[in-house]
Amino acid sequence: MKSHTVYKTFNTERRRELVRITEDVQAAVDEAGVEEGMALVSAMHITAGVWVNDDEPGIHEDTLEWLDKIAPPSWAPPANQVAEALLPEGGDYRHHRGGEDNGDAHLKNLLVHHQAILPITEGRLDLGPWQQVFYCEFDGRRSKRLVIKVIGA
Amino acid sequence: MKSHTVYKTFNTERRRELVRITEDVQAAVDEAGVEEGMALVSAMHITAGVWVNDDEPGIHEDTLEWLDKIAPPSWAPPANQVAEALLPEGGDYRHHRGGEDNGDAHLKNLLVHHQAILPITEGRLDLGPWQQVFYCEFDGRRSKRLVIKVIGA
Amino acid sequence: MKSHTVYKTFNTERRRELVRITEDVQAAVDEAGVEEGMALVSAMHITAGVWVNDDEPGIHEDTLEWLDKIAPPSWAPPANQVAEALLPEGGDYRHHRGGEDNGDAHLKNLLVHHQAILPITEGRLDLGPWQQVFYCEFDGRRSKRLVIKVIGA
Repeated sequence: MKSHTVYKTFNTERRRELVRITEDVQAAVDEAGVEEGMALVSAMHITAGVWVNDDEPGIHEDTLEWLDKIAPPSWAPPANQVAEALLPEGGDYRHHRGGEDNGDAHLKNLLVHHQAILPITEGRLDLGPWQQVFYCEFDGRRSKRLVIKVIGA
Repeated sequence: MKSHTVYKTFNTERRRELVRITEDVQAAVDEAGVEEGMALVSAMHITAGVWVNDDEPGIHEDTLEWLDKIAPPSWAPPANQVAEALLPEGGDYRHHRGGEDNGDAHLKNLLVHHQAILPITEGRLDLGPWQQVFYCEFDGRRSKRLVIKVIGA
Repeated sequence: MKSHTVYKTFNTERRRELVRITEDVQAAVDEAGVEEGMALVSAMHITAGVWVNDDEPGIHEDTLEWLDKIAPPSWAPPANQVAEALLPEGGDYRHHRGGEDNGDAHLKNLLVHHQAILPITEGRLDLGPWQQVFYCEFDGRRSKRLVIKVIGA
């Protein structure tokens, strides 16, 4: 069994951002020399995620708007009454008692998940025609890490 | 390390449907001849998912109703005021500017996830007594693919 | 390829609970003698999940409150009008026609997911500084199982 590990560091300009990393994952597979196996792509933070979806700007904007409604930040006015009702009773996250303001980013991590695992077939990520891999930052503007772990033969 | 890859094609009658595939995944494990390892079950589309849960029709209906509230379609009237408030501002997905109408299915893909990975022990999927594997279609009535990748020894 | 399987049994005091299991997963990796590979951590039930996040009590309380709003139980009064609107039409889950009362726990399983897969590098879980692994019980006070499957070299 072969294995190969690659770490990527992100420092997004915006607090929330989707960064396409399909090519980085394929590069890790190439370096691993794995023909048949799996690639695990995993954010090393609790306020980020990995999503496999379309590289279409409209859907990314839709998704970030929607995530702010169902996992609302408390550092901005709620998007609407539903977002307000989904905040904790009292209007702020208990998590913020320690000085943080990123409670919503933890819930976004729960929804999106911190990882995806991709099949490798004949040396290529075995994805559908529209599937791209995105690192999803929900509390950026500082250094964050992701690990890509390739195993196989 | 052994590996084995199986593709399944679905063409659901309804736009949204849960299709039980536990037996297909076990068949792939049998073909692989893997006794100890993992089976990755991954939709190759951005508007579908894979869920491991109960094969109980009530819970499936409950889940589809609930998904239409928290990730509302815009091709039908919103189920209620909460669903309406979870649609994008203006009432339609930006993604639809390109002629699509499946923005909600992308969000359902986010919630359900496009993949699950299952343990294999002594040649069997190592699932609990109520766990079944479902392909979850959210934009069907056309040909969609799924990949099953088995690795192990 | 090495592989190793460990089962854990939980019997939580409360109906919903987050139980830290990072050390159990690392112990399984140690027993496996795997230096490079992956650890699959998978609830064997359809009303439980696995989440990788912060071991901070505030965020756990926030998360359980929020999950009760977006995946509301029907055995307690809804937390607010949004929770009420996210219950099925008629106010109760179809799943309960069979005598169950845990429909909400199935939806929480969907949101949190029943599994996580963790990279192993140089014999250690390759997690970020704040990442801990939690078994998430949503219908406890009875015996529930989880499987840890380690593969690698």
